[in-house]
Amino acid sequence: MKTAVIRKEHFNAAHRLYNSSWSNEKNDQVFGKCNNPNFHGHNYELFVKLIGEPDPETGYVYDMKKLSDIIREEITEKFDHRNLNQDVPEFIGLNPTAENIARVIWEKLRVRIDLKYDLKVTLYETERNFVEFPGE
Amino acid sequence: MKTAVIRKEHFNAAHRLYNSSWSNEKNDQVFGKCNNPNFHGHNYELFVKLIGEPDPETGYVYDMKKLSDIIREEITEKFDHRNLNQDVPEFIGLNPTAENIARVIWEKLRVRIDLKYDLKVTLYETERNFVEFPGE
Amino acid sequence: MKTAVIRKEHFNAAHRLYNSSWSNEKNDQVFGKCNNPNFHGHNYELFVKLIGEPDPETGYVYDMKKLSDIIREEITEKFDHRNLNQDVPEFIGLNPTAENIARVIWEKLRVRIDLKYDLKVTLYETERNFVEFPGE
Amino acid sequence: MKTAVIRKEHFNAAHRLYNSSWSNEKNDQVFGKCNNPNFHGHNYELFVKLIGEPDPETGYVYDMKKLSDIIREEITEKFDHRNLNQDVPEFIGLNPTAENIARVIWEKLRVRIDLKYDLKVTLYETERNFVEFPGE
Amino acid sequence: MKTAVIRKEHFNAAHRLYNSSWSNEKNDQVFGKCNNPNFHGHNYELFVKLIGEPDPETGYVYDMKKLSDIIREEITEKFDHRNLNQDVPEFIGLNPTAENIARVIWEKLRVRIDLKYDLKVTLYETERNFVEFPGE
Amino acid sequence: MKTAVIRKEHFNAAHRLYNSSWSNEKNDQVFGKCNNPNFHGHNYELFVKLIGEPDPETGYVYDMKKLSDIIREEITEKFDHRNLNQDVPEFIGLNPTAENIARVIWEKLRVRIDLKYDLKVTLYETERNFVEFPGE
Repeated sequence: MKTAVIRKEHFNAAHRLYNSSWSNEKNDQVFGKCNNPNFHGHNYELFVKLIGEPDPETGYVYDMKKLSDIIREEITEKFDHRNLNQDVPEFIGLNPTAENIARVIWEKLRVRIDLKYDLKVTLYETERNFVEFPGE
Repeated sequence: MKTAVIRKEHFNAAHRLYNSSWSNEKNDQVFGKCNNPNFHGHNYELFVKLIGEPDPETGYVYDMKKLSDIIREEITEKFDHRNLNQDVPEFIGLNPTAENIARVIWEKLRVRIDLKYDLKVTLYETERNFVEFPGE
Repeated sequence: MKTAVIRKEHFNAAHRLYNSSWSNEKNDQVFGKCNNPNFHGHNYELFVKLIGEPDPETGYVYDMKKLSDIIREEITEKFDHRNLNQDVPEFIGLNPTAENIARVIWEKLRVRIDLKYDLKVTLYETERNFVEFPGE
Repeated sequence: MKTAVIRKEHFNAAHRLYNSSWSNEKNDQVFGKCNNPNFHGHNYELFVKLIGEPDPETGYVYDMKKLSDIIREEITEKFDHRNLNQDVPEFIGLNPTAENIARVIWEKLRVRIDLKYDLKVTLYETERNFVEFPGE
Repeated sequence: MKTAVIRKEHFNAAHRLYNSSWSNEKNDQVFGKCNNPNFHGHNYELFVKLIGEPDPETGYVYDMKKLSDIIREEITEKFDHRNLNQDVPEFIGLNPTAENIARVIWEKLRVRIDLKYDLKVTLYETERNFVEFPGE
Repeated sequence: MKTAVIRKEHFNAAHRLYNSSWSNEKNDQVFGKCNNPNFHGHNYELFVKLIGEPDPETGYVYDMKKLSDIIREEITEKFDHRNLNQDVPEFIGLNPTAENIARVIWEKLRVRIDLKYDLKVTLYETERNFVEFPGE
């Protein structure tokens, strides 16, 4: 029967929200203090969920050590202690909102996880603002 | 692709659980100490989830500042530091269980949120007792 | 060497903050929405700390099961699902602020705990407002 | 309308992960430090979710006191402060991974909960590793 | 008797750790990835503690609404969604480590809080790294 | 001025509480279900606090990466996924209560941390039971 396994990881990053095709006024109106040109930052909490069948020999849906390694290689080594706008190529021309960060993370992990597993990503920007990207 | 955004808010309120058409004995039997006629109270933690498509120009599914404002206007300004049974008209004749509070919150928010968004409400009465109203 | 042991318990209660010798206007000015005459409520989180020497035979400073029983008998059975102003005699004429609740809890526990132990009480009214009563 | 109610409980247990039909080398390779023959342990956090219609007379989907009693009788009295491999018959010949523990809990609760309710189990082995058994 | 009251607030900010009188190599060696010239960021959790005597008329050591207002005026309005190195004058020439941020916060609050109260500041940079500035 | 820095780490371990010089009956009476001869286990959360003066050149009281490395070498590599009674030499003949584990951790760290720093250890056995070893 289908079972989900979830791994929590985290990274700390700087970002700025704005649309480069808009005026400063419109960016301020839409993004408010998130549009600070000198950046601000967050402790991002990332939950990666895989849904599949437990292997009868191991009792594992997925080896969580292997999942943690994949998340480290694909995400935290590239996002942690970085400026998302300036240091992470995926956000050139893509506003690093929590919604977009979650989708980028899902896309980067999807190519590493066998398609027999459903993959879902939840990303906390703060304790009070978070997003879910179900990939469906 | 569909993405969910979630905002957490909170309010502190008093309530009493009972059915006015029942005897005191039956209310005590069913609701136990929650039927204290002098009320008790909780720190309610509220999670409001909207599911929709991110706007390509902003990267937002919904402006979380706007969502927070709507929750404040509709819910926390009316429920916070109140007695749900006596101060909140929706609970006249409706037992303020977590299930009913979550449904009332959903109904009050649903009229303020464009129907293109799915709306779901999770309400923690305590860390160990909580409810989800998926609105489907 | 001195070691502290801490036990966490909780109770849910209603209360109202006001000074009966003041006018309604002054109570509203000082206590704001906490002065709602119909009460509001909280999930109180209580931490009780005892400081002493570990017993060489058990390795315990204090039996935490016994400490939990004392807290239940003296505090949670009397405060949980109650209206502090109306149901708890200690708050007749004493405003149930977090500061005063913590002191009352300390006094009720102090008579049950051998004086060879230092006793300290921390009480969370919300996640963002809490008090420490060190009893010194 | 369908509403979910969730109850959180916990238990502390020892376990060891291994497959008795494998060599020591293969067990070490697959399960790593989780294969310590002297066992290790966890504080398991268990969330049990029931989905149903609120009763119009009570406003309850399910009496949470009754749900807590069932979880205690079926799960925590039998798992808490136990060695899952040695003290719990369900894990004779079944590797006590979080996935398998969650399924066993679901099966033991399913026979106690009326089939008109959907039943789902979430089990945290650590804050960073957890599983969901949706029972579908 | 002395009682402590604690208020929790938060702010999200970018920063970079480095000593401008050092070579790049030495900065990298000492501060590692915290020395990213494009900055990274955190969700800072701030706890402000005042120790004093409860007022017999109110039962308050300090009005927590007033304390929250002072923290907002002095700290969160100036630090939240800012780049600490570039937007906050106190960190010109002062490395914004958690230790230094906590001291700056303490100094900015100390001038606003009557000296009859002891003042202590705790600052979480992440859930796993935090500092206490007791001001003694 | 004195500042404290705190690092949080964790380990998962099995243990059993008993005094080998006592009868089974007395062990059961004193330690209850913690005396299960097949062991049980916990997710231990460890907080290590150093108190000292920030270095004016770095703004650090202590390099938290270095502190984390010392804790890993001395504690988590030796305690994590182990049976404290059987795998950790310090608990031969010493009951692995939270009080004793905290003291052992303090002693193992004290020899690695320069004496100019005060050292304090807090250890959570569960969310509701924890101890502080101040080392004074």
